[in-house]
Amino acid sequence: MKRIGVMLSGSGVYDGSEIHEAVLALLAIERGGAEAVCMAPDMQQMHVINHFTGQVEAGQARAVLAESARIARGKVVDAATVSVEDIDALVIPGGYGAAKNLCDFAVKGADCTVHPEVRRLVRALVDRGKPVAGICIAPAVLAKALDGYAPQLTIGNDADTAAALEAMGARHVACPVDDIVVDEKNRLVTTPAYMLAENIAEAAAGIEKAVKQLLAMC
Amino acid sequence: MKRIGVMLSGSGVYDGSEIHEAVLALLAIERGGAEAVCMAPDMQQMHVINHFTGQVEAGQARAVLAESARIARGKVVDAATVSVEDIDALVIPGGYGAAKNLCDFAVKGADCTVHPEVRRLVRALVDRGKPVAGICIAPAVLAKALDGYAPQLTIGNDADTAAALEAMGARHVACPVDDIVVDEKNRLVTTPAYMLAENIAEAAAGIEKAVKQLLAMC
Repeated sequence: MKRIGVMLSGSGVYDGSEIHEAVLALLAIERGGAEAVCMAPDMQQMHVINHFTGQVEAGQARAVLAESARIARGKVVDAATVSVEDIDALVIPGGYGAAKNLCDFAVKGADCTVHPEVRRLVRALVDRGKPVAGICIAPAVLAKALDGYAPQLTIGNDADTAAALEAMGARHVACPVDDIVVDEKNRLVTTPAYMLAENIAEAAAGIEKAVKQLLAMC
Repeated sequence: MKRIGVMLSGSGVYDGSEIHEAVLALLAIERGGAEAVCMAPDMQQMHVINHFTGQVEAGQARAVLAESARIARGKVVDAATVSVEDIDALVIPGGYGAAKNLCDFAVKGADCTVHPEVRRLVRALVDRGKPVAGICIAPAVLAKALDGYAPQLTIGNDADTAAALEAMGARHVACPVDDIVVDEKNRLVTTPAYMLAENIAEAAAGIEKAVKQLLAMC
């Protein structure tokens, strides 16, 4: 059975993984006959957002691994313990956690830095020809982690974000919500999901297509 | 467009709503052509569980409404503001939050008390013939909220939990993971989901069937 890594970044769109995107990816992996291996970096979140008020919770701290475990029903491992040999492919769901915890793109844009364990794993997978999928804003992580690889990616059609990806050396391709962009050379699959989706069914259409493509490339 | 209430109880299987069940319900509602109206009681969680270690986080507190907003992407309302006229049906996902926050079944078993706003809304819906669905352990909330109505429910096949439901006046019907139990008189739909499911696809099968039945009964 194929083992598909799922790199989580917390639990909640504003400070962690976008929950719908992560769950829809897990469902598509299971329905595709593969096994999900949830992981997350062992680090503190950039901050905690109260998702009811939208405000930062001053003085609160949450750990990315412990919050990611909420999506994974407890079954999540520290990304530092995962080797390129352990998995056949990787999916990175979106949510601000991808741009605040897996890297600091939300704060620094094209000058961002990717978490070292995330960068290590993404590059090692691509170097072995193992496919990697990025959902929503997660292609920003891929663009920086793969500087020098000229990855071809989509985050939908937001001009400023696309320009930032290109400033990191990626080539951005506009893409509708229910479709995917495939980089055959680097074996990357990306889909806009909630960068464009107006409801969960729209996000699901692109994510299902992305995971299906990822599994086909394994 | 039908408006389907989704009663959340936090975000995370051990102290809130089971995230997969809640997201799968939202997806089934959207794909069924209806609109989800997410709500939660305005209260503190019974406690906070670190989902990585499984341990209670001493001294931590989280609000059910703010955590539920993570699943709802911010769009969640205080259940106290929702009238029976505002929605056409209600779904209650499982997770320990249903048994720790929406009621205290996890602590008191058949002697539990249901949160007054949850009890009010469930009884008002049933009194109007509007259908209500309970996923996983949420039928325990329905059994107590509907004492005197002799509801017919399932939580799968766990003998002790089934006995506790019957002690509250419900009639328990054993049910496999991919199926539902329908109480035609009270217009209730229940499915075992993660009371029995060994993976997300198994949970999805029953939840999709339950929501489809719920929408058909609207």
